[in-house]
Amino acid sequence: MGACQSFREMCDREKNTNVHLSLPAVCIVWQTAMIILFGVFMRYDHESDAHWVEHRKHLNLTDIENDFYFRYPSFQDVHVMIFVGFGFLMTFLKRYSFGGVGFNFLIAAFGLQWALLMQGWFHWLDADGKIRIGIENLINADFCVAGCLIAYGALLGKVSPVQLMVLTLFGITLFAVEEFIILSVIHARDAGGSMVIHTFGGYYGLSVSWMLYRPNLHQSSRLQGSVYHSDVFAMIGTLFLWMFWPSFNSAICDHGDGQHRAAINTYLCLASTVLTTVAISSLFQKHGKLDMVHIQNSTLAGGVAAGTAAEFMLMPYGCLIVGFCCGIISTLGYIFLTPFMEKHLKIQDTCGIHNLHAMPGVVGGIVGAITAASASVEVYGHEGLANTFDFEGKFKDMVPTTQGGHQAAGLCVALCFGIGGGIIVGAILRLPIWGDPADDNCFDDETYWEVPEEEESIPTILQYNNHVQNKDIAESNFTMESESRARS
Amino acid sequence: MGACQSFREMCDREKNTNVHLSLPAVCIVWQTAMIILFGVFMRYDHESDAHWVEHRKHLNLTDIENDFYFRYPSFQDVHVMIFVGFGFLMTFLKRYSFGGVGFNFLIAAFGLQWALLMQGWFHWLDADGKIRIGIENLINADFCVAGCLIAYGALLGKVSPVQLMVLTLFGITLFAVEEFIILSVIHARDAGGSMVIHTFGGYYGLSVSWMLYRPNLHQSSRLQGSVYHSDVFAMIGTLFLWMFWPSFNSAICDHGDGQHRAAINTYLCLASTVLTTVAISSLFQKHGKLDMVHIQNSTLAGGVAAGTAAEFMLMPYGCLIVGFCCGIISTLGYIFLTPFMEKHLKIQDTCGIHNLHAMPGVVGGIVGAITAASASVEVYGHEGLANTFDFEGKFKDMVPTTQGGHQAAGLCVALCFGIGGGIIVGAILRLPIWGDPADDNCFDDETYWEVPEEEESIPTILQYNNHVQNKDIAESNFTMESESRARS
Amino acid sequence: MGACQSFREMCDREKNTNVHLSLPAVCIVWQTAMIILFGVFMRYDHESDAHWVEHRKHLNLTDIENDFYFRYPSFQDVHVMIFVGFGFLMTFLKRYSFGGVGFNFLIAAFGLQWALLMQGWFHWLDADGKIRIGIENLINADFCVAGCLIAYGALLGKVSPVQLMVLTLFGITLFAVEEFIILSVIHARDAGGSMVIHTFGGYYGLSVSWMLYRPNLHQSSRLQGSVYHSDVFAMIGTLFLWMFWPSFNSAICDHGDGQHRAAINTYLCLASTVLTTVAISSLFQKHGKLDMVHIQNSTLAGGVAAGTAAEFMLMPYGCLIVGFCCGIISTLGYIFLTPFMEKHLKIQDTCGIHNLHAMPGVVGGIVGAITAASASVEVYGHEGLANTFDFEGKFKDMVPTTQGGHQAAGLCVALCFGIGGGIIVGAILRLPIWGDPADDNCFDDETYWEVPEEEESIPTILQYNNHVQNKDIAESNFTMESESRARS
Repeated sequence: MGACQSFREMCDREKNTNVHLSLPAVCIVWQTAMIILFGVFMRYDHESDAHWVEHRKHLNLTDIENDFYFRYPSFQDVHVMIFVGFGFLMTFLKRYSFGGVGFNFLIAAFGLQWALLMQGWFHWLDADGKIRIGIENLINADFCVAGCLIAYGALLGKVSPVQLMVLTLFGITLFAVEEFIILSVIHARDAGGSMVIHTFGGYYGLSVSWMLYRPNLHQSSRLQGSVYHSDVFAMIGTLFLWMFWPSFNSAICDHGDGQHRAAINTYLCLASTVLTTVAISSLFQKHGKLDMVHIQNSTLAGGVAAGTAAEFMLMPYGCLIVGFCCGIISTLGYIFLTPFMEKHLKIQDTCGIHNLHAMPGVVGGIVGAITAASASVEVYGHEGLANTFDFEGKFKDMVPTTQGGHQAAGLCVALCFGIGGGIIVGAILRLPIWGDPADDNCFDDETYWEVPEEEESIPTILQYNNHVQNKDIAESNFTMESESRARS
Repeated sequence: MGACQSFREMCDREKNTNVHLSLPAVCIVWQTAMIILFGVFMRYDHESDAHWVEHRKHLNLTDIENDFYFRYPSFQDVHVMIFVGFGFLMTFLKRYSFGGVGFNFLIAAFGLQWALLMQGWFHWLDADGKIRIGIENLINADFCVAGCLIAYGALLGKVSPVQLMVLTLFGITLFAVEEFIILSVIHARDAGGSMVIHTFGGYYGLSVSWMLYRPNLHQSSRLQGSVYHSDVFAMIGTLFLWMFWPSFNSAICDHGDGQHRAAINTYLCLASTVLTTVAISSLFQKHGKLDMVHIQNSTLAGGVAAGTAAEFMLMPYGCLIVGFCCGIISTLGYIFLTPFMEKHLKIQDTCGIHNLHAMPGVVGGIVGAITAASASVEVYGHEGLANTFDFEGKFKDMVPTTQGGHQAAGLCVALCFGIGGGIIVGAILRLPIWGDPADDNCFDDETYWEVPEEEESIPTILQYNNHVQNKDIAESNFTMESESRARS
Repeated sequence: MGACQSFREMCDREKNTNVHLSLPAVCIVWQTAMIILFGVFMRYDHESDAHWVEHRKHLNLTDIENDFYFRYPSFQDVHVMIFVGFGFLMTFLKRYSFGGVGFNFLIAAFGLQWALLMQGWFHWLDADGKIRIGIENLINADFCVAGCLIAYGALLGKVSPVQLMVLTLFGITLFAVEEFIILSVIHARDAGGSMVIHTFGGYYGLSVSWMLYRPNLHQSSRLQGSVYHSDVFAMIGTLFLWMFWPSFNSAICDHGDGQHRAAINTYLCLASTVLTTVAISSLFQKHGKLDMVHIQNSTLAGGVAAGTAAEFMLMPYGCLIVGFCCGIISTLGYIFLTPFMEKHLKIQDTCGIHNLHAMPGVVGGIVGAITAASASVEVYGHEGLANTFDFEGKFKDMVPTTQGGHQAAGLCVALCFGIGGGIIVGAILRLPIWGDPADDNCFDDETYWEVPEEEESIPTILQYNNHVQNKDIAESNFTMESESRARS
């Protein structure tokens, strides 16, 4: 910790938020690298290649059995979650809506390209050294990006776009390795990514945030809240996440009953979460008033927790129970844990991703392990069991109880990669070269965006007032200007 | 009316809007009840159960013929209509956007669970006493919830969340009974729910509103309007409802031509409605200016009216005619009928659901009856006729003219359930135990939500002004504060 | 040009923005005409008619092979792009959000009806003189409307709703003729409409704007910008366009690999565009700050340019290259070309459609020609080549190189129709009968909308101030009022 302390001091220099050269350079160079790597490695798969006509006749398939029609509607829903869901959920701050939705857009657009490559190398490499992509790869790339966007939630308002690009580059890389280990080596199942996406992404972001701890962040506290309309904008994000979560958890499930069941499970889990979130929010506020932060975030915890077990026979009541618990845990997290972590653990978590992703992700991993361990032939049927848990190839002799253990092992891997990776990447992001904002400049779009000027009328009154009487006005003038910026 | 009057007096006590215990209690207890009931009754159906692999081989089906792929895209669109469509349509009030979108979220999440049970008991109960659910049940549950959200539209800003939960509990119950009578007993067809959803929901809400009449509601009139940006938020709701209405009306239609035709019919009907809404809105405003209230609401009336006949051979020009009329009727309703009802019938209808749902719903029921009665083998084909009107089983000898009569009977049942149910539930909601707001406290999120504080600068000027000269300021100070709250 | 000058003078009379009679008349009469024409011409096609049950048995198809299931999810995404995407993209002006989203709604709803007829007459007329419509026609109608909405982007805030209706009537007509020539006569391929939709629509709008040049538009310059929240609203439009563009470009592609490949290509192209847009935006702004105008618009240029070649074997790296270039070109267009065009070419382009649609559309046409010309049997396979380029019927002997030439010819036709049509329609719209706003009244919703009154508190301070001291206040009072209107 002593070394860490001195490292921190080394990094705390005068801040320069000018990204005039670094941001364009990163974008152009990395995009060029993508083009070269795509040129070398990336090709269409059987179902998206023009040879499909011949291929499908060979396999005696009709056009509608192209994987596109199984997965495209879910893909589009996932896509909406990534860009509108995550993006608008982060518009809640009064003066960081541009950064919330805009940087989310930037890093997701970069991340999905890098994810296609990384996941391609691990999972989709053909004998000729080419990656063959189809609709399922696009969904997986979006999933991979989600992990990094979750991490962004912890850092919202405190980092520069260049830092976010670096965070994403390393985040995607770590994700792809972790996912390979969990899904392919350990053979854990994780259709909706409770472990792979949410646990990893959550702890990755929290660890980075811990490394980037700002003791004087209170200097920006005037901007670290919402205004009325920014809360309504954030509800757009919340609702699109909530509504499309059944698509998220079912998008890459098995054709047929797998996708069908995952959608139903997630739908039920989320419904239940809303009620307990409202209950706890009302119970712990003065006069039973509801807090928008809880409604915006904790209502989604059920979707996170339903991820791993989405495809399993969790049963409708099981889903409701999972949602019930997650609504409570997540809301209590916002009320008690987030302030505690900021004060005592030096983890500043702008969006409360610990309560929305990290904890419910762990819950989801545990639920998945239990559900897998208790699977039986009576409930799934012989073929159903093999199908759902993918007991084939070298895993064809596995039994549900063993699978439960593998699930638990997968959760540990996700935790380790999240925390370990976050600390390393956090150390890199502390280097004083990334253009991050000063402590009194956080949560402010002015730093990285051309913000439209508001009409000049309020200052005009003040000038008039100054003209009338010129004392005591300095302070009022100051608040006036900040008001003028915060308005609209 | 005398008894009603004295009952009213009994209920008009001092208001206590503290829902500190009642709201959490209702949420937790009811959600627990849902878990127990789901545990006892709810199972997966053939297509979402893990036995599907064996089941489909038995029936010689491919995976893509799982009902999931027929209905999931429509389901997701309906889901968006319920949560974003209805939710954001109700954000138009300047200071009730949290309540509009937030309470909509709460009651929809509860309602869909209760609807799965209620509809399950009536329509999907297996021989072993279990309800088997699949994607179609999820759509039906969303439909059922829509009826209650329509009713909420009439009460927006005037009731507590606890009252809304009660309204939903009884609303879903009434809906399920009414739906069973109309669809199963009477054998009326109502794919898009003009009668079952919109007529019922509309008159249910209006009757409750009549029972909850507030003679002094003008005390909140300063908040009973929109501001510029809240009108733009409401357009999000309008457009998602408008765009996805073809999915709503086609979601549970027959596979193949049924869903296809319902989508086309609704699309055309809605397009036509927009033009007549604009025409009437412009014609009756000073200088031909358009009124956002009409654009936000009346443009949707065509979708409501296309509900019952959506699956029938309404013909493209028939759709345009229905839309044409509904745009006119609905807009005239906003201009003339809503003020009349408030003044003379003591029905306060915040969102104008009478013009958007109730009247167009009745029109839809009538259009459905006429279209059904005039159906012929020439137009539908032998199989098509039996298929579209479900002339099978004990109804296999029915003819179109009889079907027309049954449709009309269905409409009457919907009206009776709506009005009768609304009066009874309204009486229950008048009990002084539900924490509803006082007359001068309506349409204000402050009552049930933690509302973010605005920046404190404008009052600062006033304090300064007070310092300069201390008279005549009281009134200005008052308006200033309300301005400070309304801003953002 | 002399004649044009005198024509301009003739038209520059006192403005009367009262559309009290003209707007309702246009809406009612045109909608009635639609009903009559639909009655005469419009019928359901095989797949949406009730005879489908018999038809599909005859063809040995299952229900899921109804075209509805191939295209409906994409159709709904396209529908969202038309109404929410285009609509909200145009809400960025501080006081023209109602007009942006509202008039977009109006002209799209009219346009799609007229498009169904026009495209039907050219492409879908049966032997019995009837147009048979199905889901593909709905998508095509939405596409056709997109051309007119693009044109609206150049005119945003400067025209009356009546002018927009006229613009749409002629725009759809021109579009249908142009599309028939390009697709059916010349046999160019244009799945995503780079040429047919974007090039045509872009130059159509720019030519109209040139004809409607307002030398004194600076009188409205106070309103020709955004405020903080209007920029966030516009991001809703941007993101829904960006996310659903893969559906736009794949919606009417061939079943199977065609739709699959088009979605992948567009997805990649758009991802790449975001990075170069951010790079260029940052590089050319002071301190490297990002400009919301670029993020809102230029990020979409890749989708436009991927249109023509979407279905071709553009290869993943090819898509990234196209996107890379378009992001640069489009952003540079906003920085340098738009001001140049306004100053030197007398083209006022409110939304910068030249950079978002016109230029990228031309790029897309060129990319399409090159990709088509370089197609080979090795890459596509024999059947794939015939299938992708539709080398059948009278075109069955065509070869890729010829096809490349035809593509280039198609691009020229689109340009000619856009520019020529725009000049003619612009001349019509200059007639002083359409109720367009005066130069100092542009970009202001007050002209055509009932705008909600803001709270009256700021003027109250001023009155108070006036009471205290009555000089120097006139100017302050003036700015105050405009502020009061612009706020919220």
